[in-house]
Amino acid sequence: MMSLSLGVDIGGTDTKIGVIDDQGAILAQTRFATRPDRGAESLADEIVVNAHNLSEIDGIAAIGIGAPGPLSSKDGVIFKSPNLAGWVNVPIRDMVARRLDRPAILENDANAAAYGEYVAGQRAGGDVDGVQRGDMVLLTLGTGIGSGAIVGGEILRGCHENASEWGHMIVVPGGRTCGCGQRGCLEAYASAAAIASRFEKMSAKDVFAAARSGDGVAGEVVEEACRCLAIACVNIQHALNPDRILFGGGMSAAGDFLLACVRRHFDALRWNVHDDFPALELARLGNDAGMIGVGLLALQSGDDLVWGS
Amino acid sequence: MMSLSLGVDIGGTDTKIGVIDDQGAILAQTRFATRPDRGAESLADEIVVNAHNLSEIDGIAAIGIGAPGPLSSKDGVIFKSPNLAGWVNVPIRDMVARRLDRPAILENDANAAAYGEYVAGQRAGGDVDGVQRGDMVLLTLGTGIGSGAIVGGEILRGCHENASEWGHMIVVPGGRTCGCGQRGCLEAYASAAAIASRFEKMSAKDVFAAARSGDGVAGEVVEEACRCLAIACVNIQHALNPDRILFGGGMSAAGDFLLACVRRHFDALRWNVHDDFPALELARLGNDAGMIGVGLLALQSGDDLVWGS
Repeated sequence: MMSLSLGVDIGGTDTKIGVIDDQGAILAQTRFATRPDRGAESLADEIVVNAHNLSEIDGIAAIGIGAPGPLSSKDGVIFKSPNLAGWVNVPIRDMVARRLDRPAILENDANAAAYGEYVAGQRAGGDVDGVQRGDMVLLTLGTGIGSGAIVGGEILRGCHENASEWGHMIVVPGGRTCGCGQRGCLEAYASAAAIASRFEKMSAKDVFAAARSGDGVAGEVVEEACRCLAIACVNIQHALNPDRILFGGGMSAAGDFLLACVRRHFDALRWNVHDDFPALELARLGNDAGMIGVGLLALQSGDDLVWGS
Repeated sequence: MMSLSLGVDIGGTDTKIGVIDDQGAILAQTRFATRPDRGAESLADEIVVNAHNLSEIDGIAAIGIGAPGPLSSKDGVIFKSPNLAGWVNVPIRDMVARRLDRPAILENDANAAAYGEYVAGQRAGGDVDGVQRGDMVLLTLGTGIGSGAIVGGEILRGCHENASEWGHMIVVPGGRTCGCGQRGCLEAYASAAAIASRFEKMSAKDVFAAARSGDGVAGEVVEEACRCLAIACVNIQHALNPDRILFGGGMSAAGDFLLACVRRHFDALRWNVHDDFPALELARLGNDAGMIGVGLLALQSGDDLVWGS
């Protein structure tokens, strides 16, 4: 029998739930408004209702829950997230596991998306199956910049479970203040919100459209964002030496226009010592990456799965 | 019987050889001038003579060779190194293994030093033995800046075997040109050579001494170097989330003066989202770190050891 999991991706706006198979295919899915202000107990209840609507729970081997961090996968606790206002030290993993009587894991949403792209993204892109996949970094360009890294087939977590926060790499020392308290973070220059903030009443999408039509001011903002992304890519190259760096999130809808601009800056910035460059590519799973990734992770977590207590 | 290895650290100036036990202790050691211009065959011959002088080769379980990169540990080949002029695609691992009829590994010298500090450095510092060691990054501040990272107890290598080149992280976009062809690398601001290059006839040691005695110009150069190191530490924090970042190499002789300055800048630059900061510390094994580390690695390499063919 095929192994199935429930992938739950809790976002600031929507919560997505899908039944995921061991190839990363979505067999059924739904979504509802997160409304974090109502509290975690109520959200967990609505996850349960939706899960029962989607599938016979007895056929679900494991539950994967993705959420914005900082959080602890080990403890299954969301510490406190700017996107889930009012949540402090919420043991969401056990809350859901107990309600559904299935074992669960909790994972940072950007790590989950990276894992989804790593396992299922190549297949979605039509690449030959079974090819050895190399280490990979995903940068999700949305309101903020999330990121995850896969090293040796596993999520890079770090000692404090907070590795791969590439959005808060300093790329412009002394530069613009970031919401995190640092100055000159990648996120303060190359997230959709950062780009939109440079104009009145324009979204990042509008800014890219204007840049593409030759608007000089929009063009400069896009150039600056892409140059910062390219600096980040050089630094990721020297840090992890991955095979690929992928761009996902809403802003990656700018597609080849974005990619060509980042690549041009990367080529201008990179070293000439050794030909160890990562490929720069677009992500392939869109908004489902996190839900798929955390579902796949749950199926592969074995002893790390926890029954709610 | 105790397992012994031969640790060979090939530097641009000297080659060091030591008999290393499985705790990282040096039982015997020697060194000689590398003189890379004479070619690798002659150097391999001199390694053999010195090895026989140091120990009964029959008692040596494995040989570890550290060298400046870029190189391939997998293939045992040094591609081409600015510090070993004229060497191109030298299969040094097999050359030494064959001559001594012992299995060997080749490792990047900075990775080897990081491994040495990770395994034997805490012991050297008098820390309680047996404590779980967390992920660690070593920055060796010498003529250049070498670095190595230990993640989950293993060297972080990357897809192209060239991860942890933190010296070439861009910390000053558009800044000073580095020998690697990039601009604004950490190495161009915070290596001993970069610091000395700002003055006529002063070594980095002189510059630190002058800064310590209150010289304003020297003080500014030291501040700038420490600020760049602190930016690097913030970026390493967000990349790997390690437990510790260590400073080694010749310049770390500046000791607490250097450390206090880097820490001060780090505290000013870091975020306020989550308390996931690495400890910033001095390395402990000095110039022997690479030789000890590569000896220890050889003893733990098992199936990765290669007999010369």
